[in-house]
Amino acid sequence: MRVTTIHAPGDIRLEHRPRPEISAPTDAVIKITAACICGSDLWPYRGENPVTPGATIGHEMVGVVEETGEEVTSFAPGDFVIVPFCTCDNTCPNCRNGAQSACRNGGFTTGGQGEYGLVEQAEGSLVKTDSMPDASMIASLLTLSDVFPTGWHCAVSARVEKGATVVVVGDGAVGLCAVLAAAQLGAERVIAMSRHEPRQKIARQFGATHVVAERGKKGAAVVKDLTDGVGADAVLECVGTDKAIRQAFAVARPGSMVGFVGVPHGVTLPVHRMFGKNIGLAGGVAPVRRYLPELLDLVLSGTVDPGLVFDTVLPLDEVAAGYRAMDARSAIKVLLQP
Amino acid sequence: MRVTTIHAPGDIRLEHRPRPEISAPTDAVIKITAACICGSDLWPYRGENPVTPGATIGHEMVGVVEETGEEVTSFAPGDFVIVPFCTCDNTCPNCRNGAQSACRNGGFTTGGQGEYGLVEQAEGSLVKTDSMPDASMIASLLTLSDVFPTGWHCAVSARVEKGATVVVVGDGAVGLCAVLAAAQLGAERVIAMSRHEPRQKIARQFGATHVVAERGKKGAAVVKDLTDGVGADAVLECVGTDKAIRQAFAVARPGSMVGFVGVPHGVTLPVHRMFGKNIGLAGGVAPVRRYLPELLDLVLSGTVDPGLVFDTVLPLDEVAAGYRAMDARSAIKVLLQP
Repeated sequence: MRVTTIHAPGDIRLEHRPRPEISAPTDAVIKITAACICGSDLWPYRGENPVTPGATIGHEMVGVVEETGEEVTSFAPGDFVIVPFCTCDNTCPNCRNGAQSACRNGGFTTGGQGEYGLVEQAEGSLVKTDSMPDASMIASLLTLSDVFPTGWHCAVSARVEKGATVVVVGDGAVGLCAVLAAAQLGAERVIAMSRHEPRQKIARQFGATHVVAERGKKGAAVVKDLTDGVGADAVLECVGTDKAIRQAFAVARPGSMVGFVGVPHGVTLPVHRMFGKNIGLAGGVAPVRRYLPELLDLVLSGTVDPGLVFDTVLPLDEVAAGYRAMDARSAIKVLLQP
Repeated sequence: MRVTTIHAPGDIRLEHRPRPEISAPTDAVIKITAACICGSDLWPYRGENPVTPGATIGHEMVGVVEETGEEVTSFAPGDFVIVPFCTCDNTCPNCRNGAQSACRNGGFTTGGQGEYGLVEQAEGSLVKTDSMPDASMIASLLTLSDVFPTGWHCAVSARVEKGATVVVVGDGAVGLCAVLAAAQLGAERVIAMSRHEPRQKIARQFGATHVVAERGKKGAAVVKDLTDGVGADAVLECVGTDKAIRQAFAVARPGSMVGFVGVPHGVTLPVHRMFGKNIGLAGGVAPVRRYLPELLDLVLSGTVDPGLVFDTVLPLDEVAAGYRAMDARSAIKVLLQP
């Protein structure tokens, strides 16, 4: 089968590899309907994370169950399923505490940009639809694999409440989904920090009430002006750089919370500001499985359309072009069709 | 009047200075009934914070209103009042958000270890009792000035819930009050990390169900054993050193919160652990005024007796001996009688 591999920074290839096979009774093999490229795939692509030459890459996919191990009893060949980027048994103490991304038997999905994918801990990780979804739903269903629950986790971690004023730092697909989450959770004002017109447009479609194009001190000043000099009740940091973290704390009001879901790269947390202003921080790797039932309902009922983050659709054969487009920020998020 | 001053690390003096006077219409002057020495007073005493030679020191006091500015209408001479260590107007947006320690018109009380104290923003800051309290209540009422609300804030920031397993790092007076707060907020198990017998005893009186004398990796292993390998639902960090912060994150379970109220000194937050395990951090300078009505009720009703943290009572004249005892950890907390 064809599957995407990375050989060095910037070197993405589509290669032929054996189809994954069931090797544990908790495994499932999925025929992938749609996959995509994540902002975090760009870290190794840009050489900011180490690369194992020839390793498969990609961790977001939806598809149809092809085969299951003997301990997988809730899913059968033919089921359409969402595959979370982090797998879990959904029964261990961490899972029961809502921290499925720290499951004792969990791990990370890989090999997701290909024709078939292996899912470990399939029983605990997967969620299925009642029937085969319409093709028009695939994009939004695919966001449930990572990007939408990750944005949602950011909003939950920052404790977005009804009537709140929320700032979202980062206008990538996760940031846009965080805008959507904040609006769905009842925020009265959602301020998206973005200077890219197409992303601003999606932010508004997702519920942003304000867009701030300025950054740094200027951006913080604009947010302060919008909030009577107080700052935001909750700030959603969806990038992972030190600059973005500082931007987030600069616009958070005393007593507020910053949620963070961008994998930290070179981040030093401003502990004195946090302490002096009572600004908390929470978040991390999203426990996707925890949110899936609720978010699947939102998607299937047509309440939300997170699939709008996919502005580019490519056949799997053009995966390398997809990486180039996301790296250049000419695409927000690329959907791949095997 | 007599008031305590600091001239250099280790150099505490009782000096004669003019009685404070009303200089703003929001001021009040208090005749101090009881004052005390705070763990944070030890930072300059030990040379870990800069010292302004001859500056007054001390920020915890209770007493009787002597005189008020013309905008202070809720308090009159003769009222017995609690003086929060951080003052606030209790009306600004930050105060309304429950972040009174970041009040736009607030500041820090000083000159508290003396005969008379000046309270700025008296109308918003002070809380009074209905009548003159019995002498036996003074110690517990004095804890409301700082140490008890600070421990309480730690527990609230870490979101201690009914039935939770809570670890308290630090067995100073704040840590002991954090034990009391966790127990009052309904924690089922409160694990106090302490290796000093007299402090362990108070921790148990305050509601600790377990005491762990080990520290570092060994201490973390004992807590893990006590929690089926999972870690605590909430961790209360009441010291402020890097070691204590690391201890706190080492015993926090995935998806939990660490509360912190010890002024950070040389702390680097473990951002990758926080992210990977979804362990949040919240807290800071305690918004004392926010909690005062509730905590005053707990004290006056006899539900709690936080005054037990005072194991040493000295006349104000012996304040320097009080500092020496706290520095040597031979006293947990010293109450001073002017």
